[in-house]
Amino acid sequence: MSIRIGILGYGNLGRGVECAVKQNPDMELVAVFTRRSPENVHILTENAVVCNVSDVADWKDKIDVMILCGGSATDLPEQTPKFVELFNVVDSFDTHARIPEHFANVDAVAKKSGKVGIISVGWDPGMFSLNRMYASAVLPNGKDYTFWGKGVSQGHSDAIRRIEGVRDAKQYTIPVDVALEAVRNGENPELTTRQKHTRECFVVLEEGADGEKIEEEIKTMPNYFADYDTTVHFISEEELRRDHSGIPHGGFVLRSGKTGWNEENKHLIEYSLKLDSNPEFTSSVIVAYARAAYRLAKEGQCGCKTVFDIAPAYLSAKDGAELRATML
Amino acid sequence: MSIRIGILGYGNLGRGVECAVKQNPDMELVAVFTRRSPENVHILTENAVVCNVSDVADWKDKIDVMILCGGSATDLPEQTPKFVELFNVVDSFDTHARIPEHFANVDAVAKKSGKVGIISVGWDPGMFSLNRMYASAVLPNGKDYTFWGKGVSQGHSDAIRRIEGVRDAKQYTIPVDVALEAVRNGENPELTTRQKHTRECFVVLEEGADGEKIEEEIKTMPNYFADYDTTVHFISEEELRRDHSGIPHGGFVLRSGKTGWNEENKHLIEYSLKLDSNPEFTSSVIVAYARAAYRLAKEGQCGCKTVFDIAPAYLSAKDGAELRATML
Repeated sequence: MSIRIGILGYGNLGRGVECAVKQNPDMELVAVFTRRSPENVHILTENAVVCNVSDVADWKDKIDVMILCGGSATDLPEQTPKFVELFNVVDSFDTHARIPEHFANVDAVAKKSGKVGIISVGWDPGMFSLNRMYASAVLPNGKDYTFWGKGVSQGHSDAIRRIEGVRDAKQYTIPVDVALEAVRNGENPELTTRQKHTRECFVVLEEGADGEKIEEEIKTMPNYFADYDTTVHFISEEELRRDHSGIPHGGFVLRSGKTGWNEENKHLIEYSLKLDSNPEFTSSVIVAYARAAYRLAKEGQCGCKTVFDIAPAYLSAKDGAELRATML
Repeated sequence: MSIRIGILGYGNLGRGVECAVKQNPDMELVAVFTRRSPENVHILTENAVVCNVSDVADWKDKIDVMILCGGSATDLPEQTPKFVELFNVVDSFDTHARIPEHFANVDAVAKKSGKVGIISVGWDPGMFSLNRMYASAVLPNGKDYTFWGKGVSQGHSDAIRRIEGVRDAKQYTIPVDVALEAVRNGENPELTTRQKHTRECFVVLEEGADGEKIEEEIKTMPNYFADYDTTVHFISEEELRRDHSGIPHGGFVLRSGKTGWNEENKHLIEYSLKLDSNPEFTSSVIVAYARAAYRLAKEGQCGCKTVFDIAPAYLSAKDGAELRATML
């Protein structure tokens, strides 16, 4: 019997989950829940239905794992504790600073409802967190570095779009090569924000807008751009659509450390991702953890979990003997 | 109270474990067990003792985790099942083809004795296995590649040393750059043994030995060299000592895969290691898993485990709340 998956929220992430479920023969998408009118939401999977989120309780016994595809700012802090009352859930909550609070909220409900809630799944937090943790456990005497990009930052693109006179914009975060190389060489550099990443902006202006003024406004925007070397390119709407419609991302997690009685030997651990589609890769990680949520629940476990709490074997469709024979 | 560690076998790996324990303040090395006369074995740790392996049973209640540092060919197949009778153990059994059999042997004894035995810990098997497994669970529609090197292969160096007329030798395994690049470009190449790695040998001849004949013998040696492009350099004993006395190693695990309803998006996951000392890094991984063995045993678990069966958080000296706050 396959694992019955529900999707709550059908944006880029929800569609990514739908595609990822298709690649996993032990899973089946049964329903998509939306705040919109279901008749206006068109999904790709033939045998799944679209429902309004208000009907979700009817599905309590028909869905094994509900994947929550809302945003971290306002949706998930409310949705994950709410829906773990009824379902095993997985979310991609990515506001790093608020994870402890979110964990506590989800854990309290999940412990009562007897469900499993896996939070903060994706690549950062997610696969990058795993790699930071494994590497620091293996090389306690060392230093961690995370670089992001080259990739589209949705938050920074939005920040530019809010400027008066900007019709549309796309922002790329780019790791600085010399900084990355210094880390790889084991130099353990202290790097400022400016030394780690640059920001490149492609901006479409409204007719008659003052480019020079807007460029200045972008480059001096506090939190978003002021601490970075930022490049601004003005392009046409057509160029933006043609050259910048993808949502690529990626990045690097490195740990450089020393071993030996007198710290005489250096080691470098590097993990990197190069992703054509940020939401589809995030979804692929989430779906693997949905398998884990299903299995943990079958074992009678409950409560909130993160990627740190889940043995790797739970993610794989292969059983223990097959994993040992083929992957160890 | 710190985790009391024992080391069984004091070669390169045992010394590496000793150094790694020093870097972990929650652990303490209490004893080293050797088949040699204890008075001839000089360890680095001040407050630990050296004992003959025949006295190991006296330490049953004084050691929390025994780290088995013997070889995979003949030591570990016998030692791991034997010592898991008395202790929680960790080994680095690395004969991939015989892992299922070794697992079954260790599991049977550990289930009876109520101890935890973690096998095949290190970087391959070990960290590389974890990365193969995570990546294949996340991108089920994809292809795995493992490259080793640049690094010293002990087995291949030994094979050269067994040739008549060879005084000493060191062999490096080197990944082929164009193959690595083809994988990184998402070309999903089918690679032969010869296309993936080359072998470079540094050989010191006995006086009067026939270099040409020995070079031919190396290059045509079945299993070890015949399937590779091999380069042989003849050097002096002094040069070997000066330039080739380290035991560096490393390598790459890559998975390239596709997502999307019509497989329209490509992704690359890459994990790599660059290690000054193969045995010291292996030991560092083993020591992190010794912490896991200790905690699993405290929880009342028993039986044989591999890296696939152990949640990442068990490896870290930090607790769950701290991990979530700082690493997620």
